Amino acid sequence: MSDILQKFLAGDRLALSRLITLVENQSEKLPEIMSEIHKHLGKAYYIGITGPPGAGKSTLVNRLIAQGRALGKKVGVIAIDPSSPFSGGALLGDRIRMQDHASDEGVFIRSLGSRGAHGGVSRATRDVVRLMDAFGMDWVLIETVGVGQTELDIMEIAHTTVVVLTPESGDTIQTMKAGLLEVADVFVVNKADREGADKILHELKSMLEMSHPHGWEIPVLKTQAFQNVGIAELAQTLEAHRVYLSGSAKLQDKLLALRDTELEEALEETYRRHLKAWISQVPHAEKYREKVLSGEISAYEGASQIFPLLQGPKRPA
Amino acid sequence: MSDILQKFLAGDRLALSRLITLVENQSEKLPEIMSEIHKHLGKAYYIGITGPPGAGKSTLVNRLIAQGRALGKKVGVIAIDPSSPFSGGALLGDRIRMQDHASDEGVFIRSLGSRGAHGGVSRATRDVVRLMDAFGMDWVLIETVGVGQTELDIMEIAHTTVVVLTPESGDTIQTMKAGLLEVADVFVVNKADREGADKILHELKSMLEMSHPHGWEIPVLKTQAFQNVGIAELAQTLEAHRVYLSGSAKLQDKLLALRDTELEEALEETYRRHLKAWISQVPHAEKYREKVLSGEISAYEGASQIFPLLQGPKRPA
Repeated sequence: MSDILQKFLAGDRLALSRLITLVENQSEKLPEIMSEIHKHLGKAYYIGITGPPGAGKSTLVNRLIAQGRALGKKVGVIAIDPSSPFSGGALLGDRIRMQDHASDEGVFIRSLGSRGAHGGVSRATRDVVRLMDAFGMDWVLIETVGVGQTELDIMEIAHTTVVVLTPESGDTIQTMKAGLLEVADVFVVNKADREGADKILHELKSMLEMSHPHGWEIPVLKTQAFQNVGIAELAQTLEAHRVYLSGSAKLQDKLLALRDTELEEALEETYRRHLKAWISQVPHAEKYREKVLSGEISAYEGASQIFPLLQGPKRPA
Repeated sequence: MSDILQKFLAGDRLALSRLITLVENQSEKLPEIMSEIHKHLGKAYYIGITGPPGAGKSTLVNRLIAQGRALGKKVGVIAIDPSSPFSGGALLGDRIRMQDHASDEGVFIRSLGSRGAHGGVSRATRDVVRLMDAFGMDWVLIETVGVGQTELDIMEIAHTTVVVLTPESGDTIQTMKAGLLEVADVFVVNKADREGADKILHELKSMLEMSHPHGWEIPVLKTQAFQNVGIAELAQTLEAHRVYLSGSAKLQDKLLALRDTELEEALEETYRRHLKAWISQVPHAEKYREKVLSGEISAYEGASQIFPLLQGPKRPA
């Protein structure tokens, strides 16, 4: 085992930080690292926090860190920068606020970029979550903005997903139904001292009544993260969901689906890495590639011609 | 050639609509359809319109449609619904506003969902753009929200990309530099009658001066789309960029890169489609898959064991 992995397993924070950087840079050593740490996984509880910009997610995460610490938990945080550079501004302040915990050895916070094609963000997030798990964190908080496809993919690894809204989110509830019901295990109406809090609470509850029950009744909590109100109740609800999951087949189903996806993605990634070299080794395939590049035939047609030619031209080393 | 394709090529709008639905549903017939229409491509000019929520993109698109029609152009529009269901609300109104052109045979507007993993949106967008091209549209406008990775991917097919901002976007310019400079061929400051318009105009121009020139000097225009101000100038600028592109190697480079990506994606897609069946045909591979599913080994390790076993177990039919 390499030096850095040994230090990592001995609790060296710098080693953790360096391994996360390797994940971000999609290092070639990644398969080896993730396979090495695999046997140290499974102790941490993964909590996703998502919701629209301005819902106060970072403040809530900040409070949850403090709550977790008070309960004696070691807490890792992964903040996924918004995929849109447009919304970058406001978040810088939030990141800085999280520095409250910068000197606490029981807390490790890391921001991950959201750029990168082909599901790169969700793969990187999963790997970092696991690094924090293997490092010995009890809670791993994953903060994302919005619930687009990327966010839904990211949240696949969370045991429990908290969707944070505000009284101002009321108008958009109708349109976001589908996406939110898919991921939410807990709803939080933050900034609950503002006008309209009860209205959105009521709307969420009606919406949830119409959805089909699946063993866990999705709670709707009120918080005022800035004033530290409702955080202890949220932590209790998270614990309740954790207990619920451990006794249900749902977690096992979730894990199976996730591992299946991950295996598929890792195989595709391997295929992609070999593709260019393989095509160049098969003259017939190269000829079709050139026809695609020149615009003579469509990419679809090229692929249908090239694919069978690539089966077994050379086994990977 | 199938009945629907014949009707499509004869100018039947219902056939176009049905083919777009096949694209959205990732029909198995897609490779055949896209290969069939391939020889009818290349006449349309693809224009991307992107920017933050609330910048007035839909209104601008609405005005550009009218401008294009006045110039005798047939105009296709693809509006990519925001990946976040959170921002869905405001857009419904915009969609309805576009119905101004609903009865005009020279206009075809279609909204595309943005859900779907693995670059599904950008692939679907490219296919729909091409359907509109082959159908005989002169302009194809592609409207997306934000400039996250998904939007950058989508914009790869646009000949010209317009980034729309407002005076209120000023604060976030610093953070969005990277993403915007990559894609913008033209900047538009919309709602230019509002306070701060000159400030953001100046900031954009300073920012552009610091970037490296590459033949085309990125213009910064002012518009008031709602009042129909500045639209004719925008159309002229688009035409100028089109002329610039046709005489430069840049378009050819862009096309080559795009076709290369598309071929790669089509091959990966084919590989993915065969994966499950192949694994089940190779007992050794199936054994490793089960180890991944049970959590005994990591997905990375499973993939490294399975990949070599799958090379050429059975050629695709």
